[in-house]
Amino acid sequence: MKNINKIKLKQKKSLSANDYFDGIKKGNRAILSKAITLTESSNLKHQKIAEELIELCLPYSGNSVRIGVTGVPGVGKSTFIEALGSYLIDQKSKKVAVLAIDPSSKKNQGSILGDKTRMNKLSVNENAFIRPSPSSGTLGGVAKATRETTVLCEAAGYDTILIETVGVGQSEIEVKSMVDFFLLLMLAGAGDELQGIKRGIMEIADAVIINKADHDNINNAKMAVREYKNALHLFPANSNEWIPKVELCSAIEDKNIDNVWAIVESFINQTKLNNSFIENRKGQAKFWLEHTINSSLMNQFYNDDKVKELLIKLEANVSEGKISPFKAAKELLSTFKS
Amino acid sequence: MKNINKIKLKQKKSLSANDYFDGIKKGNRAILSKAITLTESSNLKHQKIAEELIELCLPYSGNSVRIGVTGVPGVGKSTFIEALGSYLIDQKSKKVAVLAIDPSSKKNQGSILGDKTRMNKLSVNENAFIRPSPSSGTLGGVAKATRETTVLCEAAGYDTILIETVGVGQSEIEVKSMVDFFLLLMLAGAGDELQGIKRGIMEIADAVIINKADHDNINNAKMAVREYKNALHLFPANSNEWIPKVELCSAIEDKNIDNVWAIVESFINQTKLNNSFIENRKGQAKFWLEHTINSSLMNQFYNDDKVKELLIKLEANVSEGKISPFKAAKELLSTFKS
Repeated sequence: MKNINKIKLKQKKSLSANDYFDGIKKGNRAILSKAITLTESSNLKHQKIAEELIELCLPYSGNSVRIGVTGVPGVGKSTFIEALGSYLIDQKSKKVAVLAIDPSSKKNQGSILGDKTRMNKLSVNENAFIRPSPSSGTLGGVAKATRETTVLCEAAGYDTILIETVGVGQSEIEVKSMVDFFLLLMLAGAGDELQGIKRGIMEIADAVIINKADHDNINNAKMAVREYKNALHLFPANSNEWIPKVELCSAIEDKNIDNVWAIVESFINQTKLNNSFIENRKGQAKFWLEHTINSSLMNQFYNDDKVKELLIKLEANVSEGKISPFKAAKELLSTFKS
Repeated sequence: MKNINKIKLKQKKSLSANDYFDGIKKGNRAILSKAITLTESSNLKHQKIAEELIELCLPYSGNSVRIGVTGVPGVGKSTFIEALGSYLIDQKSKKVAVLAIDPSSKKNQGSILGDKTRMNKLSVNENAFIRPSPSSGTLGGVAKATRETTVLCEAAGYDTILIETVGVGQSEIEVKSMVDFFLLLMLAGAGDELQGIKRGIMEIADAVIINKADHDNINNAKMAVREYKNALHLFPANSNEWIPKVELCSAIEDKNIDNVWAIVESFINQTKLNNSFIENRKGQAKFWLEHTINSSLMNQFYNDDKVKELLIKLEANVSEGKISPFKAAKELLSTFKS
């Protein structure tokens, strides 16, 4: 404790990557928070320290289970994470970090995790660490920060990382690329209210969980479970041989959360056994390497002033069929090179 | 006819873009074939003529209905296209062009469209034009050639373009980006034999057609239709408000092809009415503009000799968790710039 306090005092000067690393390894949550802020910063000096820190933490990362949780607003994500997180801490002696990817959310708009108070129990639990989504930045930037935050949290000893998204944007594909298990929360009474979910998301889910299976809603939820089981059965199998599971729960009544977790455990066991767990992680690292390179290349191109000017003109011509996309691309690329 | 013959004779010299254009506009199939070969050529001189030709044809293109047809090998794609194409020509007075995207197929391996004789009737019909997939080239190259071939065929007066893929690779996403309607062929007896279909493909289909609904298989097919209808009903709606349809047919017995076509017609009517038809086309043109730019940028990067060398090393380190993907990307990008 004395050491940690010393580090805390040093904060008034600026901390080195090693200072952050020591604090994180010792479980100092204030230092962890501050380090995450560094990874989100656009300040070049901060970025340099953050980068060094990530490399220090990397050897101590990777030992957690990373779970993506998605679903449309209203499905009860915060309540579900509160219930699941508390269960994991109380019954399974886990340390749980909750992160969010939601580039569209603005703080104080009551959107997911903008307000920690929606997770009353977790937010005061010493074995939980809750971090709202960065309030600004591109999706790419937020995703990078979240991936780096995962590394920091793992180095700090959190063994279960829950990453939350809103289920209506393209962020799910990015989240799929940083988690081991992807959980989709749904409501019973299928059809209309699902329209908020983007096409393609159901097919990347490892489990579909029907929430709010309580009171008058229990029979509907049971029917929804049967329907989704039948539907998912028709869809192609995953390359990891996992067959997506369907389960119901009531997060608000803390019901059936243990069975939801049993699905995750069974997934982890199966994929560790057939090696797809580690293969998936390796593939994800490669994905992020390429993704980062490709985004950088594109940023340079699309932020070039001459390109910007010409693009507006050519995009209009392409969309009106006056010039082929291929010829327009060629003109833009030669403008960029000159 | 005399003019066309003149053009034919001139082929011994090399044709200009204008010569090709004249021949195509006059419906000369030999010239059309030769022009398509140009678009597939890696010869720079050919590419220049092809590019000029595309721009000449562009004002005469766009008036067809473009349909993607996919399904695993064995589902009966060639037979289906033969039946649908013949129906369209005989009953609907259409002119049908059949193209294929299958970069993995080698000629003479009996794979899709490699062998025109699998479409006996269509291949000798003067209102049909069948073009096998280019036998080599990257997926990106083949996709570009197919999109350009579509423009040429439309300028030649073909009003229905059928684009065939194998349904097991990533080519479906590219095809989805060049067609108005995406049709997935399936077999009854769901489950195991569907494993060949890649995840995500079902969700981009505008119609699922259960083929081989004949003889002993009719009841299975009817059950499959019911199952898929229930399953698709659970999935999120398209932004164009189209609800994917499920239908059965027997291509080999020419049964129910009219009802399959009625689905396509109803889709075209609905999406033209709510403007999503044209919006989709505009979006596709924009997609191909960006796609072409982004692929070029990446090609330059990944083909750089210094990058290639460093990438091998860093990719291994990233996948073993020795360096973060973000730091590795940064090193590679600065190597590229220097």
